[in-house]
Amino acid sequence: MATCTQPLSGTDPGWGARNDCSLLPTGGPHNPEAFNYGVETWEAYKRGGLSKDLVEEQKKVQEADLLIFQFPLFWFNMPAILKGWMDRVLVQGFAYDLSKAYDGGLLQDKLSLFSFTTGGGQEMYSKGGIGGDIRYILWPMQHGIMHFCGVKVLEPHICYAPENVSEEKRKEMLTAWTQRLKTLWKEEPIDCSPEWYFK
Amino acid sequence: MATCTQPLSGTDPGWGARNDCSLLPTGGPHNPEAFNYGVETWEAYKRGGLSKDLVEEQKKVQEADLLIFQFPLFWFNMPAILKGWMDRVLVQGFAYDLSKAYDGGLLQDKLSLFSFTTGGGQEMYSKGGIGGDIRYILWPMQHGIMHFCGVKVLEPHICYAPENVSEEKRKEMLTAWTQRLKTLWKEEPIDCSPEWYFK
Repeated sequence: MATCTQPLSGTDPGWGARNDCSLLPTGGPHNPEAFNYGVETWEAYKRGGLSKDLVEEQKKVQEADLLIFQFPLFWFNMPAILKGWMDRVLVQGFAYDLSKAYDGGLLQDKLSLFSFTTGGGQEMYSKGGIGGDIRYILWPMQHGIMHFCGVKVLEPHICYAPENVSEEKRKEMLTAWTQRLKTLWKEEPIDCSPEWYFK
Repeated sequence: MATCTQPLSGTDPGWGARNDCSLLPTGGPHNPEAFNYGVETWEAYKRGGLSKDLVEEQKKVQEADLLIFQFPLFWFNMPAILKGWMDRVLVQGFAYDLSKAYDGGLLQDKLSLFSFTTGGGQEMYSKGGIGGDIRYILWPMQHGIMHFCGVKVLEPHICYAPENVSEEKRKEMLTAWTQRLKTLWKEEPIDCSPEWYFK
């Protein structure tokens, strides 16, 4: 029986058991001499040895036409728990491969959408605002992750500072999101180039 | 005795026990009716109720003149485990407060430096490269986190694709880092403005 220590990624994804070996790849490491997280997960993927929770998440991604990531913006980025999902689920061989990235990524013919709430107001995230244009912080998520895997990206859906607006305004936010979802399939993906983000 | 469920942040920071209550703030929630992570940690900080591991990390930050974050770049960002450290340790009241952010942040008179390795080569992270200028991905980390807390930022230290270079080149990388550390205290912080990142 293998010794159970802790998940290789060091992050608790929150969807698995906390006190057993289910998060570990099955079988021993590919290279016990020099641990390389990327190589280990790639090799585990190829031999069907990824842990059960990852296989389940990858199946959901495979079956989806559209991936919607809904989260509160923490520190100008997705919360660690969601970043952990990206780190653990989107492994080489499944989401990208040697020379298979960006427009050649392995998750083509899928759409994605980042939908999030912010703490700061919209003025903070404007071009002249102290936080900088909101698009600056979309680059690592949309281009660095989704586009890298070949996934097309729809315009983000941003609810600014819902904590600090009236109840009426919050209801309007929900209504706007509901409305958008109805016609989401008719939307064209953004042009995921530096110009979209930084011009 | 309080019921032990799971850490509030949902991330396993990897520095605490996995199967006890030590990661939970002590005492009950400030507002059991509507859970708000930011408010709960702020209130816990004010009443001295943050969990022990967070208090210890905050003490290290408080005592440090320079914070060096060393990590492998995962998905154009820090790994989830390090993002979890940011999410959990840099709470309101400790790192920033109402109207106390950016140049007015609570962690002034400190320096920070992001030192990381990449998978892709330097040409990928140039202005015309497919990954975009490396500075684009530094914005959320350096400006969004460190500058927000009032911490000044030194030039990042980047080792490109150490996996794919010769042993000799890897040794040169280590030597260069060693050399830089010797005179780090004489360096001037960067001008943390959009111009530095996007021009």
